[in-house]
Amino acid sequence: MDLDSTFNFKKSNIGRLIVKCSDKPGIVAAISHFLHQKNANIIESSQYSSDPEGGTFFIRIEFHLKDLNSKRQEIETSFRPLAEEFGMEHYFSYGDQIKRSAIFVSKETHCLLELLWEWQSGDLETEIALVISNHEDARSTVESLGIPFYYIPANKNIREEVEAKQIKLMNEYNIDLLILARYMQILTPNFVSHFPNKIINIHHSFLPAFIGAKPYERAFERGVKLIGATSHYVTNDLDEGPIIEQDIERVDHRDSVPDLKKTGQQVERRVLAKAVKWHLQDRIIVKNNTTIVFQ
Amino acid sequence: MDLDSTFNFKKSNIGRLIVKCSDKPGIVAAISHFLHQKNANIIESSQYSSDPEGGTFFIRIEFHLKDLNSKRQEIETSFRPLAEEFGMEHYFSYGDQIKRSAIFVSKETHCLLELLWEWQSGDLETEIALVISNHEDARSTVESLGIPFYYIPANKNIREEVEAKQIKLMNEYNIDLLILARYMQILTPNFVSHFPNKIINIHHSFLPAFIGAKPYERAFERGVKLIGATSHYVTNDLDEGPIIEQDIERVDHRDSVPDLKKTGQQVERRVLAKAVKWHLQDRIIVKNNTTIVFQ
Amino acid sequence: MDLDSTFNFKKSNIGRLIVKCSDKPGIVAAISHFLHQKNANIIESSQYSSDPEGGTFFIRIEFHLKDLNSKRQEIETSFRPLAEEFGMEHYFSYGDQIKRSAIFVSKETHCLLELLWEWQSGDLETEIALVISNHEDARSTVESLGIPFYYIPANKNIREEVEAKQIKLMNEYNIDLLILARYMQILTPNFVSHFPNKIINIHHSFLPAFIGAKPYERAFERGVKLIGATSHYVTNDLDEGPIIEQDIERVDHRDSVPDLKKTGQQVERRVLAKAVKWHLQDRIIVKNNTTIVFQ
Amino acid sequence: MDLDSTFNFKKSNIGRLIVKCSDKPGIVAAISHFLHQKNANIIESSQYSSDPEGGTFFIRIEFHLKDLNSKRQEIETSFRPLAEEFGMEHYFSYGDQIKRSAIFVSKETHCLLELLWEWQSGDLETEIALVISNHEDARSTVESLGIPFYYIPANKNIREEVEAKQIKLMNEYNIDLLILARYMQILTPNFVSHFPNKIINIHHSFLPAFIGAKPYERAFERGVKLIGATSHYVTNDLDEGPIIEQDIERVDHRDSVPDLKKTGQQVERRVLAKAVKWHLQDRIIVKNNTTIVFQ
Repeated sequence: MDLDSTFNFKKSNIGRLIVKCSDKPGIVAAISHFLHQKNANIIESSQYSSDPEGGTFFIRIEFHLKDLNSKRQEIETSFRPLAEEFGMEHYFSYGDQIKRSAIFVSKETHCLLELLWEWQSGDLETEIALVISNHEDARSTVESLGIPFYYIPANKNIREEVEAKQIKLMNEYNIDLLILARYMQILTPNFVSHFPNKIINIHHSFLPAFIGAKPYERAFERGVKLIGATSHYVTNDLDEGPIIEQDIERVDHRDSVPDLKKTGQQVERRVLAKAVKWHLQDRIIVKNNTTIVFQ
Repeated sequence: MDLDSTFNFKKSNIGRLIVKCSDKPGIVAAISHFLHQKNANIIESSQYSSDPEGGTFFIRIEFHLKDLNSKRQEIETSFRPLAEEFGMEHYFSYGDQIKRSAIFVSKETHCLLELLWEWQSGDLETEIALVISNHEDARSTVESLGIPFYYIPANKNIREEVEAKQIKLMNEYNIDLLILARYMQILTPNFVSHFPNKIINIHHSFLPAFIGAKPYERAFERGVKLIGATSHYVTNDLDEGPIIEQDIERVDHRDSVPDLKKTGQQVERRVLAKAVKWHLQDRIIVKNNTTIVFQ
Repeated sequence: MDLDSTFNFKKSNIGRLIVKCSDKPGIVAAISHFLHQKNANIIESSQYSSDPEGGTFFIRIEFHLKDLNSKRQEIETSFRPLAEEFGMEHYFSYGDQIKRSAIFVSKETHCLLELLWEWQSGDLETEIALVISNHEDARSTVESLGIPFYYIPANKNIREEVEAKQIKLMNEYNIDLLILARYMQILTPNFVSHFPNKIINIHHSFLPAFIGAKPYERAFERGVKLIGATSHYVTNDLDEGPIIEQDIERVDHRDSVPDLKKTGQQVERRVLAKAVKWHLQDRIIVKNNTTIVFQ
Repeated sequence: MDLDSTFNFKKSNIGRLIVKCSDKPGIVAAISHFLHQKNANIIESSQYSSDPEGGTFFIRIEFHLKDLNSKRQEIETSFRPLAEEFGMEHYFSYGDQIKRSAIFVSKETHCLLELLWEWQSGDLETEIALVISNHEDARSTVESLGIPFYYIPANKNIREEVEAKQIKLMNEYNIDLLILARYMQILTPNFVSHFPNKIINIHHSFLPAFIGAKPYERAFERGVKLIGATSHYVTNDLDEGPIIEQDIERVDHRDSVPDLKKTGQQVERRVLAKAVKWHLQDRIIVKNNTTIVFQ
């Protein structure tokens, strides 16, 4: 559901509050009382508790408030005592604060094209600030949309200097989210540490099946009847980061490895686009090595 | 999610509050403040607003409270002023108040068997008080589980007296929910008016396609590629009541009408069981001719 | 399965034979004997009989033959007596005979973009000869790929002259397949009669539900839980032509009409692309008002 | 598609021929010519070649022939020279030769109940000859249907004698197919060697993810968004046998381990029933460690 489009609120009057804390009675009462006092109207609210007795509580609230723009600082400041009382990790975000994305891509452009399509049709609320690739294949498509394209050849021998260039660009462009749209290079722990829970990858299998390289070849040999894809946040453990979304398509004995790849591409682009969309709307909270997704 | 099983609370300490009212700021704050004052802990909460400005607001809260059994009347009484202030329609229900179901069935027993299976495995929290059929086919299965079985022959010429018998039994057995598990007789408006939003039917098509009789034959002729089923509350408009759940299975040109029927049966039993489960957990709210389902 | 890619045959050495006739014993034996005599190797074969006793038999055979290019006429000629003996409707096609497509589009370009994406990635074996639209929205996208774009404003008052222009272009460009990629204008019987079983449309509902205009609005009002799309050949009966493919996505009470439309667009582009792909590979046979699809 | 039901042939007049051999031109011509000479009418035919040049060819033909009962021996004998010429592995089966099944089950009965339900409704064409369990839970259900039930307690210390008893019963009852309907004991290589490609297991994960014990617990920890099940033939490599069918259901962060198990049970029973059905209709051919399934 996209409440903004549904109710035609001004984006600048939409706020989001995301909270994580130890569960105990009274949290919802305290937060909703706070927002009510500020005259904010809750338009969407999702919560989850890992265990109402001694577990962790998570809530995402979307609220509407006239002239929110001028009231943000006051709201954030006056929420702090409450946050401290309950020991909350929390943040506010606002409907007009569009996140800035970078996309890394290699030769295969199906995921990139899907993201560009969704972005053009207004379904991805982000500014695609730049695209970086170790191949030139995507340049004309990207540049024709007015998006800067950087060609940075990469291989494992020059990984450090490549990543230094990438990090420099990420900082220059002030990037909030990095999308690995089938970028076939491994990222070092140093790189990953710069963007915690801010790098989304698409893996071409139903993780944890076929972790690592050549998943379609191995799926073919194993004779699976479904081909999957997994989008996840990138951590230092390759293919082991928190899963955001997964999906599958049916295949059968007639499908060759290239057939599996083509089928897989359809799943990959769908699954990646969903994960990115949810991230942009602050719908994902990481909990240990899993995600809570408030759809 | 089945919170009861998840957290091992005593069922008698679980309460549910379902509310419907005009949307305006402060509802969530008021309700959550009320529950907090009563020392209740919210363990699940789902809400929906048809429009935050002038629409209708719906919320379902599941809460936990020690010794809830002895506090129910006090809670319900003290909630009334708040309900009046906001103009709420509302009700409370409790985890140990198991709803009593009646199942009507004809010759085809696949939906009945599915419900009995789910019930035996503890997934349908209901007491199946009786089964009524216009055929004897299901008797031995039903009675072997210790459930009373009533054979009431039916046809359109004797509809009034048949329904009189059925209503009498429904009252004797103190029924909360009537499940039409492929009961092939039409119910009169008089009958339906006795059980508003308490009769769940399974229709053997993806409504509103193939309303009425012989949907599989018509689906075959139309050459559809998907076969669906729809569970809905029964109203006086045949096949037009609020839809609770729908699902489909893929078919192709090789499927004959009997094949479509067999495929359809798989969908029917799955879709009916889901609708019944949600109803039993007070997860469904009827809004005009649609449903809000808080899964 | 895409055998061409799988086995790396030269496309010009791949032949397809599609046959429809009254079922009787010996058809498969006769055809396979014929092909064997010509030294052709059957690489894929799919058949269907509506009834082995007195029904209609359909078969699609894909075969490989060295130097097929120079043998086509001889094969087609020598097959004729056999075709006459069994009363076959039949045709041959060849892997290097790429069909020429026209795409008609209006303002919404999601289906067009999907087709262009599949085409660019080599998954749609067609030459997209031209795009015709009653709006200018798609021009730059289309022309940037080197495809001619024709802007022909349309409304019901000028339908005849519009269609005359379109037919002229279709003939000039020697079009084999017309794809209506969300072209929101009604076509006259005269127009349709020029391209029997050669116009594929995408309808934005699970037909026969929500035939006609505004299906998403009506789906919203009816409270359906699934949103579908249907691709079909266009006949003179609006929305009543032979269904090629259908699919659905799940929605719920939170989805507004714009949400349903966005969800529907995802289904539409997937379903249309599949139908077009199968048509291009001669996998679809029309039987009365239904289709046989040899996937 | 169930052709028998579709066309109302006498089951005894339905034959099936399953063939596997090196691919080369003329196989289909030879087989179809042979059947035509015998006056048999091909009513269904499915074929697959791993590679038309030097690969392996597989075909499953279903044919109809009047008074087939009295002609079987003659047909099988006269097919032998052709089989030798092409180096075919092959077998014939007949519509009235119902396979005899044994079901092994432990405490969880959901898969057993599904099989019994499908069997009662005529969808599993088998004679369920006996059920063996290491628990008494299923006895009354099984015996009420007139099926012998054997309670054989089992644990790893007495595995040999347990399997000896089981093999003895399997032989006494002349079993064609052994279905492990959530039988939680490991089978020894000796046991498995008695029934090659005749033991179907249901594994409670999307293999090869979560091979081994406690898949739902591990799926929960890994935070997967889909729960799967896999039916496969049993080989000596635990959980590594040829996969017959797989399917999944969507789950999310709210689902506890028990929730995942319940969801998984729905997938398990569906997936196992499909695999069994296909096996009974001779639709599955094992190729290395994969299966060809002619649906």
